[in-house]
Amino acid sequence: MLKDVVRTKSYQDVIYKNKFLIKDKIVLDVGAGTGILSLFCAKAGAAHVYAVECSQMADTAKEIVKSNGFSDVITVLKGKIEEIELPVPKVDVIISEWMGYFLLYENMLDTVLYARNKWLVDGGIVLPDKASLYVTAIEDAHYKEDKVEFWDDVYGFDMSCIKRRAITEPLVDTVDGNQIVTDSKLLKTMDISKMDSGDASFTAPFKLVAQRNDHIHALVAYFDVAFTMCHKKMGFSTGPKSRATHWKQTVMYLEDVLTICEGETITGSMTIAQNKKNPRDVDIKLNYSLNGQHCKISRTHFYKMR
Amino acid sequence: MLKDVVRTKSYQDVIYKNKFLIKDKIVLDVGAGTGILSLFCAKAGAAHVYAVECSQMADTAKEIVKSNGFSDVITVLKGKIEEIELPVPKVDVIISEWMGYFLLYENMLDTVLYARNKWLVDGGIVLPDKASLYVTAIEDAHYKEDKVEFWDDVYGFDMSCIKRRAITEPLVDTVDGNQIVTDSKLLKTMDISKMDSGDASFTAPFKLVAQRNDHIHALVAYFDVAFTMCHKKMGFSTGPKSRATHWKQTVMYLEDVLTICEGETITGSMTIAQNKKNPRDVDIKLNYSLNGQHCKISRTHFYKMR
Repeated sequence: MLKDVVRTKSYQDVIYKNKFLIKDKIVLDVGAGTGILSLFCAKAGAAHVYAVECSQMADTAKEIVKSNGFSDVITVLKGKIEEIELPVPKVDVIISEWMGYFLLYENMLDTVLYARNKWLVDGGIVLPDKASLYVTAIEDAHYKEDKVEFWDDVYGFDMSCIKRRAITEPLVDTVDGNQIVTDSKLLKTMDISKMDSGDASFTAPFKLVAQRNDHIHALVAYFDVAFTMCHKKMGFSTGPKSRATHWKQTVMYLEDVLTICEGETITGSMTIAQNKKNPRDVDIKLNYSLNGQHCKISRTHFYKMR
Repeated sequence: MLKDVVRTKSYQDVIYKNKFLIKDKIVLDVGAGTGILSLFCAKAGAAHVYAVECSQMADTAKEIVKSNGFSDVITVLKGKIEEIELPVPKVDVIISEWMGYFLLYENMLDTVLYARNKWLVDGGIVLPDKASLYVTAIEDAHYKEDKVEFWDDVYGFDMSCIKRRAITEPLVDTVDGNQIVTDSKLLKTMDISKMDSGDASFTAPFKLVAQRNDHIHALVAYFDVAFTMCHKKMGFSTGPKSRATHWKQTVMYLEDVLTICEGETITGSMTIAQNKKNPRDVDIKLNYSLNGQHCKISRTHFYKMR
């Protein structure tokens, strides 16, 4: 994960170029992993950093903190944020890299919000503090052969019943900028410093305008993350026009192929909810219509990411 | 998994080109998945096929069997092989695609052996019936930068304590034929029709002879699978000189870089055992020496695959 340069370098830049956010502050690093964000904060002059990590990685983080000479500044706590105790009443800053695929799949947002409610001082800051989800539409003719038609004749057998499943599962994959047919629209911005856990479930409308004549095979979702407390706004995007990250994009194939002309619109809404059985799963419901022709082509999909 | 053509086509060829193995026989398909092997057997004239699958995929398999018109020949049973009951006292043939990475990592061999002991008629056959593990040695200078030296300076911090872990975990990756420095040696052949579960834990010696002057950074393990009951011997290899499969090869990096000349030998032994805590994990212990210089360069590694 450290090898995702866009991600790690963004956090590093935010911290090193905005030391006023960190210097002499008490920082809580939620899901610290190897402790890299804690090390950034320590180097930026934090008064103290509490690095909370529940996996075995906590032991490695302790070793790394020691070998880099920061044992007096960084305390690694092995355990769940819900269970650990800090030796201070409150912290000034919470930092975390909690985002999952599609922003919300297998994410640690609830943990960050829990930590914020329990440990963050009034007026304290959360890094990052904004996360936004976007949608756009792509042509992807190639996928039909590979992911759909394949099932019509599998070594001589008809497995087309698998087709529907292949179609209704979102795919984490890299979209080429040239595949994009419409503009992109913001679905939702979440304010991590203020939101409730329930705000991560929502229905958001969208209206996409075609920028050329083409076919549309899928909608694509991606997210941005922002650190608005910085001297100038900083952050990174996981969109198809930005430098690739390990999050890639999330492709949601449509059952039909839409034929669209420049200037025509796809309107619809996306409903996102925590799966009730498995809270780390995400259910996505998609309604859409082309040029307002609801009856003919609107579809409802149920996506469960795996 | 169906998209691994080498694998699926091998099973298809074995069955279609050796119908005498299947025709009018009762077949048990262990871990049937989509039911593709059962379909092959049904098409080859099996009297009946019991397709056992414990995951949700069993429901899909039922649907596929039906839509291909084989409901009278194939019975899909959803459940564990240890728990299901067959309506026949014995089966004539057991077929399974049970192999994991490194042959034995997260494999279903124990399940196949259980099925064989409980359900296979005396003199019945197991497809495949032989599995062989091989070792060779490669140069892989590139890996040092990527996987080892990376940890010496991670965004300005020393994480070299992770280096040892990065080194001591086997890596499932595709080896280029040009990287191979020595010959290949057979470590062990397992006879699936006769072996006990415990035979999958063993120590095997090896002696690799360099075919050119080069450096050696890693040992590489791969496996072959054979169907020796065929009219002529059939099977497939997952070796670096064969067509790629999803199993790729398993690369085990050495702590030291060996400098070897053509004709010189690496002798050693590999000990493979089921991990006691997690039986689906594999512990690998590696002893080796260059030209008999044991004291200087022999190393013992403990690999736990994740």
